Amino acid sequence: MATRSYRLIISCPDKVGIVAAVSNFIAGEGGLISEANHYLDPDTSWFFTRQVIDASTLPYDIDEFRRRFSAIAADFSMEWRVRDTDIPYRVLLMASKQAHCLSDILYRWRSKEMTFEIPAVICNHDELRGYVEWHGLPFHHIPSGDKKDHFRAVGKLFEEISPDVIVLARYMQILPPKICAQYAGQIINIHHSFLPAFAGARPYHQAAERGVKLIGATCHYVTDELDAGPIIDQDVARISHHDSIDDMVRIGKDIEKIVLARGLRYHLEDRVLIHGNKTIVFE
Amino acid sequence: MATRSYRLIISCPDKVGIVAAVSNFIAGEGGLISEANHYLDPDTSWFFTRQVIDASTLPYDIDEFRRRFSAIAADFSMEWRVRDTDIPYRVLLMASKQAHCLSDILYRWRSKEMTFEIPAVICNHDELRGYVEWHGLPFHHIPSGDKKDHFRAVGKLFEEISPDVIVLARYMQILPPKICAQYAGQIINIHHSFLPAFAGARPYHQAAERGVKLIGATCHYVTDELDAGPIIDQDVARISHHDSIDDMVRIGKDIEKIVLARGLRYHLEDRVLIHGNKTIVFE
Amino acid sequence: MATRSYRLIISCPDKVGIVAAVSNFIAGEGGLISEANHYLDPDTSWFFTRQVIDASTLPYDIDEFRRRFSAIAADFSMEWRVRDTDIPYRVLLMASKQAHCLSDILYRWRSKEMTFEIPAVICNHDELRGYVEWHGLPFHHIPSGDKKDHFRAVGKLFEEISPDVIVLARYMQILPPKICAQYAGQIINIHHSFLPAFAGARPYHQAAERGVKLIGATCHYVTDELDAGPIIDQDVARISHHDSIDDMVRIGKDIEKIVLARGLRYHLEDRVLIHGNKTIVFE
Amino acid sequence: MATRSYRLIISCPDKVGIVAAVSNFIAGEGGLISEANHYLDPDTSWFFTRQVIDASTLPYDIDEFRRRFSAIAADFSMEWRVRDTDIPYRVLLMASKQAHCLSDILYRWRSKEMTFEIPAVICNHDELRGYVEWHGLPFHHIPSGDKKDHFRAVGKLFEEISPDVIVLARYMQILPPKICAQYAGQIINIHHSFLPAFAGARPYHQAAERGVKLIGATCHYVTDELDAGPIIDQDVARISHHDSIDDMVRIGKDIEKIVLARGLRYHLEDRVLIHGNKTIVFE
Repeated sequence: MATRSYRLIISCPDKVGIVAAVSNFIAGEGGLISEANHYLDPDTSWFFTRQVIDASTLPYDIDEFRRRFSAIAADFSMEWRVRDTDIPYRVLLMASKQAHCLSDILYRWRSKEMTFEIPAVICNHDELRGYVEWHGLPFHHIPSGDKKDHFRAVGKLFEEISPDVIVLARYMQILPPKICAQYAGQIINIHHSFLPAFAGARPYHQAAERGVKLIGATCHYVTDELDAGPIIDQDVARISHHDSIDDMVRIGKDIEKIVLARGLRYHLEDRVLIHGNKTIVFE
Repeated sequence: MATRSYRLIISCPDKVGIVAAVSNFIAGEGGLISEANHYLDPDTSWFFTRQVIDASTLPYDIDEFRRRFSAIAADFSMEWRVRDTDIPYRVLLMASKQAHCLSDILYRWRSKEMTFEIPAVICNHDELRGYVEWHGLPFHHIPSGDKKDHFRAVGKLFEEISPDVIVLARYMQILPPKICAQYAGQIINIHHSFLPAFAGARPYHQAAERGVKLIGATCHYVTDELDAGPIIDQDVARISHHDSIDDMVRIGKDIEKIVLARGLRYHLEDRVLIHGNKTIVFE
Repeated sequence: MATRSYRLIISCPDKVGIVAAVSNFIAGEGGLISEANHYLDPDTSWFFTRQVIDASTLPYDIDEFRRRFSAIAADFSMEWRVRDTDIPYRVLLMASKQAHCLSDILYRWRSKEMTFEIPAVICNHDELRGYVEWHGLPFHHIPSGDKKDHFRAVGKLFEEISPDVIVLARYMQILPPKICAQYAGQIINIHHSFLPAFAGARPYHQAAERGVKLIGATCHYVTDELDAGPIIDQDVARISHHDSIDDMVRIGKDIEKIVLARGLRYHLEDRVLIHGNKTIVFE
Repeated sequence: MATRSYRLIISCPDKVGIVAAVSNFIAGEGGLISEANHYLDPDTSWFFTRQVIDASTLPYDIDEFRRRFSAIAADFSMEWRVRDTDIPYRVLLMASKQAHCLSDILYRWRSKEMTFEIPAVICNHDELRGYVEWHGLPFHHIPSGDKKDHFRAVGKLFEEISPDVIVLARYMQILPPKICAQYAGQIINIHHSFLPAFAGARPYHQAAERGVKLIGATCHYVTDELDAGPIIDQDVARISHHDSIDDMVRIGKDIEKIVLARGLRYHLEDRVLIHGNKTIVFE
């Protein structure tokens, strides 16, 4: 249904003429821009843009695009990438025992609501195997009793599979700093609180203890500091005094699913640009 | 606090090279773009853009900008306007007896949360005179007992004042088609329902009758069809079986205020482009 | 995890002493009330209550409860029922081709987020068979090419299965009035708009046409008037000019799932009391 | 418009027969209950109820009610109070320079949206005097240059006025522990963050620093621990990368107003029961 496009993502120091240079380049060969977003961060004078170009309107392929665009990119000291929407992202999923986030992502994948490939699902428990395998997907059970063994095996699988994105769909293990660093900007986590409130373990218990009137969930990139990476999306739901911790868990699951799905979609559509510890999300 | 800017608003048939032409023009004289939004409507192949240019980076004034830009505008058959943010909009306010929307707008005006001028407040009742005059604003009481007389007087005041924007802050009268046509795209109304549900009179009574679980408010441009003009913004609030119509009115007032303020702000910042009976809102 | 309880649901004309009579009866035998809600409708002077009694604190079973309570019920002309939470509701699911609502309910069932039995799933297409049967549930494909045949077969299955609740999880067929009447208050539908706006076919197309800024979903009991039965729950999500109809469908699916699940849970927990064409929902 | 009522607020250890005893007492003299809420806290086995009795249906006045009810209250070791809705609460308002919360409360007061008396407004700056005095209300400017002098004067005014409720409508000063203790459960503050995130100074700056996607406000009772008292209500609004701190302040103001007004209304309608560091809010 979707048109084949090239998505051009750029960030660079602000300067007069960036947009003119980029749009001249694209228009020069007849390229039609179907979507364009710009953002100039006033604090750092850094410029960000995402442009979607109808691939069929360009007379060359993406490699030639890259070759030709390099000159402009160099002129403006751009960090940039261009992606062909015909090549789907490969998304490795990690979970534990709880099925709600994993089921939700699998539904969106099998119903083609979002387009991506799933090279593998890794869990530290075996409960979800049947459900995952029904989808015809490879399931890896890597127990986490011995953390060192667990992460050695996980790291090895990551290297073999070389995924574009790793989604921690309530995986409940803290990845070692080395893995966080190696896959910086590629690992997406869902945390079951409205961060920075209630980071760490048992956030619904913390929320009950404090007596808050809203609970939330946060989708963020993983860094080596726990629950402190750049936030992609957040949402909340109202609770009241008569909601027990079990009620919070139930209500929270729906927010977690929605927020993770939204964050993942933004990432897959190249709408998220990381800037320090924050994100620009071109919705 | 805000930098003097020129806001350039364009809509035209889509064509390769529009953005390149516009951004070349701006960059050609050293103009710095601080904000830019684009939208291509796929159904009508119509292109919309809003660009904010730092006025101090251009070597000429707005009249010269208009003169020079005309050539490009003609090439692409643009409907366009450019506005100097140093010249505030003149906003005529109309209300009846209920103070919530009018008070809210007056607060935002006197606290400088939004920048605009108020040449006059017109009411068909006299209750709000004291409050309006405390602000040092001219108050016109035009009774609506005789509709014909009322609208003759209203129309005359409009001509004398020649406002940029007319806000119906719960004015509760239906403007005659002639006035709607004359000020098309300039009259903003707040309707106390989630349109298209419950158009017309007593929407909260209609909502209670139907047993809905959310009530809403809609900010829209006025056309000669009642409550059917292009929608700028909407919002809702949750109600329950124990909320009486009085409760709905109370809860609804807060939504009305927020939605009207948001819609007015979008308009004053030139973020709203009307396209047929819909709006593009560059938030 | 949940304590076995008796849920006592009463509606009757208001009169001094109802609560006293009911609570005396329960306390008289040592019954502990863990949850209680009351509502007095001021327009009709009708009184509603839902009381949850810890079954283990009563010295008799539910049949004896019924026998003994009848006298009080007669005194106050009550419509009433009492339900043993150890006997789960039997919920028949109906769908078409779209899986989102059905998948969502099946997830909540298999994860025991909600407790109920599923005696059958009926679809007018065969696409969802594999997914349903993986859950070990009986799947009935009843084609709807010939409406008369379809509803004869559907009606026959209803009679055989005699479900407590029928959920139309995007079933997309209009049930004949006879079935609506026979199962009044037992059939729950999810409509993909914020009713009463956009009743009937293709609500997202209607929403796009009108240019609304929020889309919604409504969970309601089915009556013989299309999309006009008592509303149980509703919710909305924000959209903008750049959301196509496909985007609305995608965004809307998440609201549909949440609203249907919430409405079904309220029903299964006996929190919904129908009063004319409205509902009292004791959240 | 509202019927004169007695609001009976009770909390006590749970025991079979509380509701029966209370409702027998009320029904015994023909009292009609127009609203009733119950809550049993499962963790502490503590029971809470709020009952609204139509005053005209009782054959005695509130003092006689108090005398007669004392016996039951003693039997069940109740903490309780009963309030005559004809005697409005006296609410002392405190603010600084910023007008948004104060203006909002004054609007709700002068429009009779909420019924209460304002014996005084205290500010540590003089800017808001004109606006307050236009309402015919006594304005006290108590500078806060010398904290000790400030709080001595504030404490003295509190003693003279003896308010039922003190509202800190963005007062921006930290009350000394002695005052917090003396008026425990009577001082309502609005904090401009979603607590417990971003307690203390400059919460919008903290929010910008962390890159959150929602900002919030919290209405809570003041205790001697800063921003840590029992929460009455909270709400949030969505922001994005293009919202500056000034935008957050503007967006946040609307949430602050709504949340403070809601919290204050709950308090004035005796809907809030404090239980340790949490609240039960019978909405």
